[in-house]
Amino acid sequence: MIIVLRPHSTPEQIDHILDRIQELGFRAHLSKGELRTIIGVIGDENKLQAEPLSALQGVEQVLPILKPFKLASREFHAKDSVVTVGTVRIGGGSMAMIAGPCAVEGAEILDGIAREVKAAGANILRGGAFKPRTSPYSFQGLGEDGLKILRDTGDKHGMPVVTEVMDPRQIEVVGRYADMFQVGARNMQNFDLLREVGQTRRPVLMKRGMSATVKDLLMSAEYILAEGNQEVVLCERGVRSFEDSTRNMLDMSAVPNVKSQSHLPIIVDPSHATGRPDLIPAMARAAVAAGADGVHVEVHSCPEKALSDGPQALLPGQFADLMADIRRLAEVVGKTIG
Amino acid sequence: MIIVLRPHSTPEQIDHILDRIQELGFRAHLSKGELRTIIGVIGDENKLQAEPLSALQGVEQVLPILKPFKLASREFHAKDSVVTVGTVRIGGGSMAMIAGPCAVEGAEILDGIAREVKAAGANILRGGAFKPRTSPYSFQGLGEDGLKILRDTGDKHGMPVVTEVMDPRQIEVVGRYADMFQVGARNMQNFDLLREVGQTRRPVLMKRGMSATVKDLLMSAEYILAEGNQEVVLCERGVRSFEDSTRNMLDMSAVPNVKSQSHLPIIVDPSHATGRPDLIPAMARAAVAAGADGVHVEVHSCPEKALSDGPQALLPGQFADLMADIRRLAEVVGKTIG
Amino acid sequence: MIIVLRPHSTPEQIDHILDRIQELGFRAHLSKGELRTIIGVIGDENKLQAEPLSALQGVEQVLPILKPFKLASREFHAKDSVVTVGTVRIGGGSMAMIAGPCAVEGAEILDGIAREVKAAGANILRGGAFKPRTSPYSFQGLGEDGLKILRDTGDKHGMPVVTEVMDPRQIEVVGRYADMFQVGARNMQNFDLLREVGQTRRPVLMKRGMSATVKDLLMSAEYILAEGNQEVVLCERGVRSFEDSTRNMLDMSAVPNVKSQSHLPIIVDPSHATGRPDLIPAMARAAVAAGADGVHVEVHSCPEKALSDGPQALLPGQFADLMADIRRLAEVVGKTIG
Amino acid sequence: MIIVLRPHSTPEQIDHILDRIQELGFRAHLSKGELRTIIGVIGDENKLQAEPLSALQGVEQVLPILKPFKLASREFHAKDSVVTVGTVRIGGGSMAMIAGPCAVEGAEILDGIAREVKAAGANILRGGAFKPRTSPYSFQGLGEDGLKILRDTGDKHGMPVVTEVMDPRQIEVVGRYADMFQVGARNMQNFDLLREVGQTRRPVLMKRGMSATVKDLLMSAEYILAEGNQEVVLCERGVRSFEDSTRNMLDMSAVPNVKSQSHLPIIVDPSHATGRPDLIPAMARAAVAAGADGVHVEVHSCPEKALSDGPQALLPGQFADLMADIRRLAEVVGKTIG
Repeated sequence: MIIVLRPHSTPEQIDHILDRIQELGFRAHLSKGELRTIIGVIGDENKLQAEPLSALQGVEQVLPILKPFKLASREFHAKDSVVTVGTVRIGGGSMAMIAGPCAVEGAEILDGIAREVKAAGANILRGGAFKPRTSPYSFQGLGEDGLKILRDTGDKHGMPVVTEVMDPRQIEVVGRYADMFQVGARNMQNFDLLREVGQTRRPVLMKRGMSATVKDLLMSAEYILAEGNQEVVLCERGVRSFEDSTRNMLDMSAVPNVKSQSHLPIIVDPSHATGRPDLIPAMARAAVAAGADGVHVEVHSCPEKALSDGPQALLPGQFADLMADIRRLAEVVGKTIG
Repeated sequence: MIIVLRPHSTPEQIDHILDRIQELGFRAHLSKGELRTIIGVIGDENKLQAEPLSALQGVEQVLPILKPFKLASREFHAKDSVVTVGTVRIGGGSMAMIAGPCAVEGAEILDGIAREVKAAGANILRGGAFKPRTSPYSFQGLGEDGLKILRDTGDKHGMPVVTEVMDPRQIEVVGRYADMFQVGARNMQNFDLLREVGQTRRPVLMKRGMSATVKDLLMSAEYILAEGNQEVVLCERGVRSFEDSTRNMLDMSAVPNVKSQSHLPIIVDPSHATGRPDLIPAMARAAVAAGADGVHVEVHSCPEKALSDGPQALLPGQFADLMADIRRLAEVVGKTIG
Repeated sequence: MIIVLRPHSTPEQIDHILDRIQELGFRAHLSKGELRTIIGVIGDENKLQAEPLSALQGVEQVLPILKPFKLASREFHAKDSVVTVGTVRIGGGSMAMIAGPCAVEGAEILDGIAREVKAAGANILRGGAFKPRTSPYSFQGLGEDGLKILRDTGDKHGMPVVTEVMDPRQIEVVGRYADMFQVGARNMQNFDLLREVGQTRRPVLMKRGMSATVKDLLMSAEYILAEGNQEVVLCERGVRSFEDSTRNMLDMSAVPNVKSQSHLPIIVDPSHATGRPDLIPAMARAAVAAGADGVHVEVHSCPEKALSDGPQALLPGQFADLMADIRRLAEVVGKTIG
Repeated sequence: MIIVLRPHSTPEQIDHILDRIQELGFRAHLSKGELRTIIGVIGDENKLQAEPLSALQGVEQVLPILKPFKLASREFHAKDSVVTVGTVRIGGGSMAMIAGPCAVEGAEILDGIAREVKAAGANILRGGAFKPRTSPYSFQGLGEDGLKILRDTGDKHGMPVVTEVMDPRQIEVVGRYADMFQVGARNMQNFDLLREVGQTRRPVLMKRGMSATVKDLLMSAEYILAEGNQEVVLCERGVRSFEDSTRNMLDMSAVPNVKSQSHLPIIVDPSHATGRPDLIPAMARAAVAAGADGVHVEVHSCPEKALSDGPQALLPGQFADLMADIRRLAEVVGKTIG
């Protein structure tokens, strides 16, 4: 960590800063330049980052030189992690093809969708039972009944299932039915939830928050890893921006950006990112070419009657066409499905 | 609600749309323009907004004409709401001056801070016992011990207290000690938490999420109001932006913007918004001039040793100077403190 | 265009609005709903959009139903446009592979780079002679000397050349040397410049502004098309966002988004978008998979000595590897190079 | 400047970096920490910032310790600058009250507006003759005829005038009529324009670009100052954000933020920032309380017939009410008008 001093910092201020650094158990290294004096602080930067050094009188700025996450970093774990959900491998050259409706609405309709996405090549079934909805007046999900339907449908079609857990108190019941927990974008910094899914040994699909940087995303993964659960898959699903013709802005560069810093797998959700079915296939193809470890796509057999997010769902036939493209692209980039 | 059709929508598509509208219990009103056909849909738009009409074939866009919140709106409740915390009134010309450290760190230090902010004119004491921290390695708060210290200190100095509740399971314990719940920015869309603080009758200070629009903020307030708790105070605390010299971007226009649409009080937190003590006084003054119903400022007697967010705290003396300015501005804008 | 009235608009206000619409030469169509009265305005919406109807007393909001651009729209011109630069075709299945250094620095160094990118498969050579630099103390380009070097090098290697024009007064001199004008991101709304490149018949590569929506980008293209120059290629190069680990945020969905609304070709510049050579190849591959009509990549043989933007340049060998990937991806998506 | 090396940088890489630093005329200072080696580079950082050091093999990041602007900085010029326009002083405790219509539309209408804003207390008259319009089909301004009307009206009412210059070729004609040049937000990085207004000795009102950071704004001011023109007034007018209920997001903290780093005056334009007349008065009041050196407000006597931006104009009576508030606030913050 480097401390840059203000132009006219006094000898007393500098002494106080040096004392404070020593008091905290670090070594200081003073260097006077032409216009600024800087202090290098030597020791465990992770501990140091928690200290409010920039509040010391005479300090202009504090420049960290290390990343604030550790277990999620490639420095700590050089090789790509592979997360296994049921029999599906995610990472290390294997891709998850997660598909299904936004919400579980009923057994019959989910069965139909599952049959079609499975036939097209999806390897994990998704569907929400607890739904975070912006409006208190919107459909809030079927709860445990939805979980049962999801489990039965997954079993019938031989697909592991993933579903969202919104509250730590739901971990137990969701854990009884699901193969993988989803932590939604709105909960990426619900730290109690992160800690408690971290205490399970169930894989977690963690979506990037709408205003989270890639560093924030990795810090949130660190919460789960720090509790001992290493089975974390990240998901880019778009961030807030000024562009008003798409629901969010898909930050495709997050894929190689995460991979340069972390060993964790990352997939892409073009459905929530764009909110527009006409853009989803192109973005799913791009994700595969960018090196993503999978995609997450909403599919509904009758979008106009869907109880949640119908307008952003692909039809089963559109999904099948997309899967054909993805298979060809996977070959080019040296990946396999599942 | 208005449905705009695509240029070459077919008669079959139009008939299907009209049928669907009727099936949902609404009336349709067709109007052919030179380049587009539009359909006005007449009936309860709140119900209609939950329907995925834009997924219908032939639809180009769906334009809502009403706001999606109701109980929070000025149309529903024309007069400014006043929320009372202890004996402090917020709204309707009365301002909350909320001050205190980011986190409760100990009884002695909090006592010193409380004495000073009270003397300067603060009327509500703040301090976190459960802390949402980006890093799992940072100080996470004293928990119930912190709540006790906060309560005792508030009582000693005659100040009601506000503190954050991060998880629905903390509502009971926080409710035993605090006069007002704070819902943090990261939890603005933690809908279970909103619903459950809505089931209490304790005032709630709800912070705007880092990527929430003013409409999103009012939708989240609607969750609390819909459960029967009318005691909601909103708080602008900055949103994410590309500007990298401040922690967030304080959206000062949210103050009159909320007031134009809603009866709920709104205060401003310049500490989290800017993250820079040198900017906090100017932004607190601006908030009062903009019509805010109060400010929320972090104060610490020794920022360089604070366990959380020290670098953004004002010293007690700086806070006292600020309060002197605020009193003079309050007079100009016709407000009183508390 | 649809005018939504305020809840308590008076009959006098409504009459005044109807009169004003008639006065402007449009027809009005009144429709009373349960909570709002709306007025449909029938006539040429392009003319109407220039009128400040929302300033009329009693108006709550004005909802346009048409897009504000015309010549750039797919409704006006359904088929993909193909722009030809020298012998290189851009659009309609043909891709531009534009490569070269940020700035022209000298004849020898440009010759070396051109030889290598040409051998790797690039079909257009780029290099700046007039450089927009954030700092007045940075290298500002070689001016006309740079243009000569660029022209000579392009001729020697059989590549058409593209270079930036920053000011309308440079159009003449740049036009003497370049096959294609580049309008930079900072000039996307320099309307005099747009109009005057629109008066030439030279192809224009127009970069998206850092805070421009896709609609803004198409409106700026409209300026050029309206002057009679149909040879416009758009370029996505990242927009400003809160993410601080990349220079900008590449909005990959702009590619299919533009294609859904416009017939104009669109390419992607991952160099400026990310500012990080380690992310450029993945983003270039993703662009091709997303359907882009080409890519624009900075290449320098010695980035550490480049006079401008060295840290974001690929080495020639890295570019050659990328081109090999792109050729395989092009086949999958049914495109050819040049 | 500090160079942080990658964890496994080789001795050869380090030697090459040290050689390169020496070759550029700087001194290097190596320091090995537990996890990273860092190199302090001593010498003129302004020169160094132009060098692509981050492109050197083995470099992880380059951390500047100085700001990239100099003439605009408070370190260079500690005292507040005062810019004089006609007889109006801006800065150092004096405030500009700039008012007028978006565009000059005719002599009679401007005369009426000027009379009213002057009577209310405005001290500078504004009005556009060359208008940057997003759409090529919108009113583009009256050109030199508009300039003449503006000059005559200003003279008649004893007000200096400010108007936009969009293109360097307009500097001569605009300079014949105007007391102050306005550089619009879209031209904040039109570097030729900046340089050429910098070569005049006429005051310049420079608006912040829609995606410009405060640092970018000061860098653009540096272009003008570097040419010898010290008469620069900055203007915060809102930046692009995800908030869709206001035209832009007014970054009020830019006022104290600029003042902490620069001696230049800064005013606020709430009209363009919000685009909503109902929010303008509150934001103008907040600007004064935040320490702005003035405000810039659009006023039109008949907004519903304005040829440009009518919906965001205040009526003369609303402006007069606002001025009464501003006078009282000015007294509290120790400022005078003009």
